Parts: sequence; C-alpha cells; structure tokens
Amino acid sequence: MTRRTSKPLRIGKVTVGGNAPIAVQSMTKTDTRDIRATVNQVKELEDCGCEIVRVAVPDKEAAESLAAIKKSVSLPLIADIHFDYRLALAALGAGVDGLRLNPGNIGDKEQIAKVVAAAKERSVPIRIGINAGSLPADFQPKAPMAKRMVKMALEQIRLMESLDFDLIKVSLKAFDVPTTIRAYQMIADKIPYPLHLGITEAGLPRTGAVRSATGIGILLYQGIGDTVRVSLSAHPCEEVFVAYEILKSLGLRQRGPTLVSCPSCGRAEVDIIALAEAVSKRLGKITAPIRVAVMGCVVNGPGEARDADVGIACGKGKGAIFRKGSIINTVNEKDLLEALIAEAERIEQALGCGIG
Amino acid sequence: MTRRTSKPLRIGKVTVGGNAPIAVQSMTKTDTRDIRATVNQVKELEDCGCEIVRVAVPDKEAAESLAAIKKSVSLPLIADIHFDYRLALAALGAGVDGLRLNPGNIGDKEQIAKVVAAAKERSVPIRIGINAGSLPADFQPKAPMAKRMVKMALEQIRLMESLDFDLIKVSLKAFDVPTTIRAYQMIADKIPYPLHLGITEAGLPRTGAVRSATGIGILLYQGIGDTVRVSLSAHPCEEVFVAYEILKSLGLRQRGPTLVSCPSCGRAEVDIIALAEAVSKRLGKITAPIRVAVMGCVVNGPGEARDADVGIACGKGKGAIFRKGSIINTVNEKDLLEALIAEAERIEQALGCGIG
Repeated sequence: MTRRTSKPLRIGKVTVGGNAPIAVQSMTKTDTRDIRATVNQVKELEDCGCEIVRVAVPDKEAAESLAAIKKSVSLPLIADIHFDYRLALAALGAGVDGLRLNPGNIGDKEQIAKVVAAAKERSVPIRIGINAGSLPADFQPKAPMAKRMVKMALEQIRLMESLDFDLIKVSLKAFDVPTTIRAYQMIADKIPYPLHLGITEAGLPRTGAVRSATGIGILLYQGIGDTVRVSLSAHPCEEVFVAYEILKSLGLRQRGPTLVSCPSCGRAEVDIIALAEAVSKRLGKITAPIRVAVMGCVVNGPGEARDADVGIACGKGKGAIFRKGSIINTVNEKDLLEALIAEAERIEQALGCGIG
Repeated sequence: MTRRTSKPLRIGKVTVGGNAPIAVQSMTKTDTRDIRATVNQVKELEDCGCEIVRVAVPDKEAAESLAAIKKSVSLPLIADIHFDYRLALAALGAGVDGLRLNPGNIGDKEQIAKVVAAAKERSVPIRIGINAGSLPADFQPKAPMAKRMVKMALEQIRLMESLDFDLIKVSLKAFDVPTTIRAYQMIADKIPYPLHLGITEAGLPRTGAVRSATGIGILLYQGIGDTVRVSLSAHPCEEVFVAYEILKSLGLRQRGPTLVSCPSCGRAEVDIIALAEAVSKRLGKITAPIRVAVMGCVVNGPGEARDADVGIACGKGKGAIFRKGSIINTVNEKDLLEALIAEAERIEQALGCGIG
C-alpha cells in the first residue's frame, strides 16, 4: 500500500491529499432550505466523526440558506451544484469551503469559467464529480463507461487548468464496482490532483456497506484515494461509520474501539453472539482506539484475546479475562460482560481518553 | 481481475478451484451433538444459498453425530477438527466430504499421516486452515505474522505432498486485513492448490461485513481465492448473504435482485430512504438476478434507472417507472412501490424464475 502522490488542497480547515489522513465526508439529507434541520444534521455528523460535509443546493432559496448554515457550523462545507452555474456563484458568495460540480450538467465553458474565476478569487477548491448515471448520452457513446468518465473528467480538468485554476479534486463514481475501479486507476497517473472515492447509489446499509467496502477498499489498497464518501440510503452517520470501518480495516485511520469476535460454532460453550452484541453496545461509550476480543473457545480464543488490548476467551460456564497478553482474572459467565467492560474502561482512562 | 490458476478439487458435489464459480460456504453454530438442530441449520443454509457447510467436531460424541447429519442433508459437509487427529479419522469414517485441520494444534507428523492416508483412501480433500490466533507461539517467533502463517502452511503442505496427497485447500486467516492479504499473496504463487478466503473473527455484521468485504474483495480483485467464508458473530445465513454481496459487487457471482438506491440529499422530494427500504423488503421474494433502481431526483435518477432492469426516478409527488431504458409509466408517489414491484415481478416471470 504505497499511497499515490497527490497535490494537497485545503477544504476549510481540512487538508485533502498529499500525506494528510484520508478524510471522511458525508452529505446532509435534510432540505437545505430548512436551515435549522440542516445545521442540526451537520452537528450530528461532526459528532459521529465526519470531517467535511456537503449540502445539495438545488435552487436559489437553498443557496440563500448557505450563509446562515455556514455561520452555525464548524465543519468545512461543500456546496453540491447541478444544472445552474449561478447557484455555484451564489454558494461561493455565501462563503462555502468547496464546490462540487457535475460536468455532465453544469453548463457551457463560459459559465464554468465564471465559476472558476470566482472560486479562484476565494481559493475555494472545486471537485469535478463525474457520475456514470449523469454523463450526457451523446458523450463518447461507444467507449466503455470507465473511459467515458475519465475522458469527461480530463476535458473539464484541462478547461480549468487553461483558466489557471488547480484547486481541483476529482471523483469518478459508478454503481458498478469494476467500472469505478478502472476509472480511478486510469486517471490516477494522468493528473496530480486528490481523488475523492465513492461507489454511487450503493443502496441500503446491509448491501451498500459491502459494495462500498469492496470498491473503496480495493482502490485504497492500491494507494488511490484521498477522501472517502460512502453513499448509503440511510442516516449520513451510517455512511461515516462505514467509511471509518473501511479505513480501520486497512490500518489507515483509527477511531474508537475495534471488536474482534468469533463467529461461534458447535464448539462454543457460551452464547457468544449475544455476548458480542452486549459488549459492542457497551463499547459505544468508549472513544479510545482499543482492540477488544470476545472469543468463544480455546481454539483461537486465547491467541486472539492475547493480541487484543483486552479480551475474553470463554470456556464452560466461565471465561478468562486477558489484558495485553496476560490473564488477569477468571470469572463466571454471568460476570464476563461487566469484567470485560471494566477493563476496557480502565485502559481508556489510562490512555487519557475519558468516557464520552 | 485475472484469476489465479488453481488445481480444482471436489468437495462432495461442489468443485472448488480451477474455473469453477467461487463457492460460498459457512459453518453451523449449533451444537453438533444436537443432530436435529444441526440438520435444520444446514437446511437453512442451503435455502439461503450456501454451497458447502462446515461443522465443528469438538469431541467423540460430535464425531458420532456426523453420520446421521450427513444422511439428512444434501450440502457437502466438512468436519472442522482441532487437537485430536482421531476425531478426523472418525469424521472420515462417518462419510464427510471434506476435512479442515488446524496444523497449529492437530498433532505430530505420524498422526497427520494417519489422517492423510484415510482421506486419500476416500478421495476426501483436506483444508490446511491456518489462523493467526492459533499458531504455536514458538513457531518462527521473530518473523512477521504473514510470513509465519505461510511457513506453517508450506510445512504442512510439503508433509502431505510427501505422503503423495494433493487434495489440498489452504486458508491463511487473520483478523488484521493487511496481514491476511500479505499471507495469501505470498502463498499464491508457491502452490497450485485452491485457496479458501476469510477474515477471521471479523465481529458483528455491521463492522464484520465491512472488514470482510475489504479484505476478501481486495484478494478476489487480485484473482486470488476459490471459495469464501465470511465469519460473523451472527446467524450463518448472514455470512452467506455478505459473501454473495462481495461476489456480486465484483461481478463474480449473481444471486437475486440488486438494489441500486441513492443516498438521498437536500434535493430529494420523496422519502427515498423509506421507499428503498420498502422496495428491498418486497424484493426479498424475488429470485431473479435483476437490477432495480430507486432514485430520488433527476440528477442521476433517470440515468441510473435507465441502466437498471426496472427503476423509478422520483420527482415532486410522483415518479417515472423505467423498464430497460424506457419510461413505461408515471405514477403518484403513493403508487410508486406497487408499480415498481409489479414491473419487477413481470420481469422475473418473463425470465422464468417464478416467485419463490
């Protein structure tokens, strides 16, 4: 996993690209014209670890809400614009930290030039956000989709560069995972700009999280990607949660506890699934990046539990509590949950993370 | 995605490796000694698409249950053995279709040789199933984990080969995704045998599905892997579901409908998340591999919906129903769900899949 070199840029207080941590972003699902609801959702997103937030700006009234929203939130704010370049100008006027334009529908070169000039004046980056579903049907109709997406992106990039603008970020999203991967791979060597990863319209969490993890995980493992937005038909905090789980799986970010738990099998002598669920619920209050293991038997149990900061390996009616490689206690089954959580809390306090 | 060449073998009626479809497997979580509960769970697994099932054989009584279980089920049955090679001999005697041995704990060379001779006599494949958590602590203690796992696997493989046995399958599982990937990559070119993929003890479904999709997806994309077992602290059918979602995301298998649905944003004019959830629930009865799109607005909506077998693109209070690229109807918001499902069912009937 050697990360592709990209030219870092700033979205408000957050650096995207270069050696900066891969940033997690999401999008509000409230009506942007409803300032209070949108501000509340941005704050929820901040609380759940989102680092950059995007809001849809479908009309003039939404654009006019942006100034008030921006004033009430501390997360960097990106305006998502389609169809009407004047909304982009209005969003820049309202002080947004970034723009996302869809080159498939934003307007002609002259209109784009006006937006680029206004963004340049304010040093506001623009994401060229290509979606397979919104490429004009008459654009390179015979080429494979990934190639069409890349060609459209490169055309827009060259246009912006010709206007002496380089605060560019690019995304190339499709629902189809191999198409998405090919598109990002194709563009990765051709441009120096940060890449925003996502699998578009991935669906409900149960399927969309798997689809997103497969596609985004493969790209990140190839060193491609500077910021991630998981698209799920769900509350946006679920998108943030899944994004962090992908990044945590690859060791690229840390956030909160990680639960190692065995799938259970005919060997388990306690109800390991119920125990893992109870532990997970209680770990929700812990913010330290500790590894907690809940293991059902002696096969991998002690081995994995030893590897964890704290763990239990269950036997018949009782379990051993491990802390950093040493058995510190053996307790009855009914006391396992409390004993494990007490240890996790002690570790968190020792790390100075407090219980949030 | 060029698939690694592996030497195919048969687990009962299922071919693993070579050009065979990547097989989906899981493991029962019932007490194997409880024959009725175990048979019932195997049948549930068969119904949800599992192709090979493994059962833990922790003791003599469990081994004695295998003959009766085998007689009552049609899925290929693999016995999972630790600590006692005699249980492996008993499982072979009971007619299982495959063995999984953990070289870290199964016994000395002479004991393994006895198992191999009995497996050879019956043409029953053996999986050498390495887990990071159960490697003997004194085995290559200074080497990195991935290397230790590969070394242990190669030792066992060479031992079996020296006994003129080649019905071998190998797994190298760790909780840590980069370790798992490195281990499989390292062994991929060194041996001709099929590889069984998994991320061990991945946890509860919300996190474990993401971790599994990341690790297994990366390997499959590299062409590595002939069969998949997702390990989740959940009902085994959830493991099967996630395995298929990974394979579907990469276009490697088809199974049932695929729901494309947008994440919703400030642009949506209907409650797209609730609609997607309702559609997903109703699609549960459909078995045909159709693509269904639920889109909230006109930005990507019509484009994605056109790409799908059937889709809706919603506007204010109403939506357009698309079928294979053509608008076939425009209906009021309250009728969208029924109209979409009616179309999906018509497509399924045309495909001759019936409603199961």
